[in-house]
Amino acid sequence: MTVEYEKYMDEALSEARKALDKGEFPVGCVIVMNGEIIGRGHNVRETTSNPTAHAEIIALAEAGKKIGNWRLDNADAYITLEPCPMCTQALILARIRKIIFGAKNSKLGACGTVWDMINDPDNISHPIVIQGVREYISIKLIESFVNSLRNKSYE
Amino acid sequence: MTVEYEKYMDEALSEARKALDKGEFPVGCVIVMNGEIIGRGHNVRETTSNPTAHAEIIALAEAGKKIGNWRLDNADAYITLEPCPMCTQALILARIRKIIFGAKNSKLGACGTVWDMINDPDNISHPIVIQGVREYISIKLIESFVNSLRNKSYE
Repeated sequence: MTVEYEKYMDEALSEARKALDKGEFPVGCVIVMNGEIIGRGHNVRETTSNPTAHAEIIALAEAGKKIGNWRLDNADAYITLEPCPMCTQALILARIRKIIFGAKNSKLGACGTVWDMINDPDNISHPIVIQGVREYISIKLIESFVNSLRNKSYE
Repeated sequence: MTVEYEKYMDEALSEARKALDKGEFPVGCVIVMNGEIIGRGHNVRETTSNPTAHAEIIALAEAGKKIGNWRLDNADAYITLEPCPMCTQALILARIRKIIFGAKNSKLGACGTVWDMINDPDNISHPIVIQGVREYISIKLIESFVNSLRNKSYE
């Protein structure tokens, strides 16, 4: 199972690298159902001027369209960074079965770090959460992004 | 100012009616900046199979694209129903100045009814919230939707 987690997280990381290449904050996501990737996305908030264009929102839209149903009961979401409240609730609304993430999000993490929306009894669904998968690589990608911004300020 | 609120809420209600006509749960939203509607949307979760296709997410995407910036600091959001946590956080992330809504959302309202994300000190932005504008019409639309479901079960 751990090997499965790493295999799909590598796909989410490849999405995060696409974001980095565009100068976007590097977060990637893939949605997996029955061993198949049915949705993928990376953060494109700056390049699309869309405040909601986080990796998870894009991947969920693609996944729903692919299977012709907004209910993704048997699907798992792999995300390189712990989701924010918008994306955590999007995953809950979609009835995602399991959320597997890489690095903790100390500013906006809603799967336990800043908020815990997952275990909130008022919520309509309670996905299982696995954290720390490929954490180091996810953090390194974010560090690359922060360093690129620092270098820019000297240009 | 009250007249302004009602004027734009009527536009949000016309969006909600479009959702109702499609057999969708009737919620509508418009984003207003400097007296101009820059984004509009209605719930199309069923017809698009997209779990994130709430009125607010669609209206915010359109607004960002329209002004070429995901930051909507000087914009206000008019929504017929109190936003859920996904949409409340989307509005917060977009730096929306003011959230004006019609009816309270007793199941998923995140602007005070079930959760209060607006006054959460951990959040990055704190929009002003006005509630109850055209509340009666918003509730009537939702009742129409519920009644149409009931009638369907007898068909």
